[in-house]
Amino acid sequence: MRVAVLGTGTVGRTLAGKLAELGHDVRIGTRDPDATLARDESDAMRRQESFREWLERHPQAQLVRMAEAADGAELVVNATNGTGSVAALEAAGAQHLAGTVVMDVANPLRFSDGTLSLFISNTDSLGERLQLRFPQARVVKTLNTVNASVMVTPTQVGGGDHTMFVAGNDPEAKAVVTGLLESFGWADVLDLGGIEAARGMEMYLILWAAMRGVIGDPMFSIKVVRPG
Amino acid sequence: MRVAVLGTGTVGRTLAGKLAELGHDVRIGTRDPDATLARDESDAMRRQESFREWLERHPQAQLVRMAEAADGAELVVNATNGTGSVAALEAAGAQHLAGTVVMDVANPLRFSDGTLSLFISNTDSLGERLQLRFPQARVVKTLNTVNASVMVTPTQVGGGDHTMFVAGNDPEAKAVVTGLLESFGWADVLDLGGIEAARGMEMYLILWAAMRGVIGDPMFSIKVVRPG
Repeated sequence: MRVAVLGTGTVGRTLAGKLAELGHDVRIGTRDPDATLARDESDAMRRQESFREWLERHPQAQLVRMAEAADGAELVVNATNGTGSVAALEAAGAQHLAGTVVMDVANPLRFSDGTLSLFISNTDSLGERLQLRFPQARVVKTLNTVNASVMVTPTQVGGGDHTMFVAGNDPEAKAVVTGLLESFGWADVLDLGGIEAARGMEMYLILWAAMRGVIGDPMFSIKVVRPG
Repeated sequence: MRVAVLGTGTVGRTLAGKLAELGHDVRIGTRDPDATLARDESDAMRRQESFREWLERHPQAQLVRMAEAADGAELVVNATNGTGSVAALEAAGAQHLAGTVVMDVANPLRFSDGTLSLFISNTDSLGERLQLRFPQARVVKTLNTVNASVMVTPTQVGGGDHTMFVAGNDPEAKAVVTGLLESFGWADVLDLGGIEAARGMEMYLILWAAMRGVIGDPMFSIKVVRPG
């Protein structure tokens, strides 16, 4: 499948790497490829691999501008920061998103005075806002409830016996995304219905962060234990 | 243990019944006992057992005014509606809550235009608000993440292999509540730290409601699957 991954941070890299490994044709979209490739030193100071180094290890992935990545893609992955998601999809181009499955894994997170909160929540969600702004896109919210590493290798946690959610208005788009999740190793995918269920999936992040604090490790997940 | 259960709805009845069954001295607090006992007909029309009928089946529980229930209680359970929780604890009396463990199981839920949302969230929580309003109470948030029946009989879901959270500023109070949860059958209690973690526990309700909708049954729960 031809896939555009928007975002060059940890989540974008992790998803792009996994998708390339699975044989998909992956283009990573960024605002300015030269700037992304030049960002070596600051990343090195953060003791993180620079994007250039990452790309050298993943020669099958191409780094291009947002619109070039999205043009012709069957699946667009929103792996940008929540704060920049609308602008990123605008840069990708509404015309390239029309009819396209948009897998939204972002969270509307905000740190303020050392406290994590959501900048959209309760009566709205980032997923809904993207669907509203790009009505012809087929937005599916998923993967936002776990860390990047768990997203692509769920078997790392409890042998994979835990749950991923999907929400979106288009059943076919959810089927495409669910197939992708299964190819990552997700064995239990719970369809929560329309995109408005993104609200609960994003609000869960505040519980996730509290758990992250006391577990002391982001490699955890939740299993929905249903009636027998 | 001498326990006051504030609230005569399904959650209050279920908790009071279980606590009485476990041998605790249970007083159920309500604003106006006569009014609660007179509410037979409207409840019958809702095809729900009236409180009077419930009380007849649970003669060991006493129905008294809020303040009378809280006076001398070692544990006060806030099982009122979120909208009425502050007023209920005020009626119980700050002097009766001073030094007392307050187990807060309420949620700040609001239905509006057919949509469920929270009337406190994201940067605050009902649990925090109660702790702030009653600084001498030892508030512990718990049990708000499951339905009443699962609260007291967790083994009904997946044989009990799922997780309950506690949050609160007082470690001893959390130990008392955790002991009580264990006596209900909870095998996995995750301490999320201070009362500010009530935020995530309450925000989870929006995800819970989405799951409730698609699972079609409230008898479910989540298990936190931690690193090996």
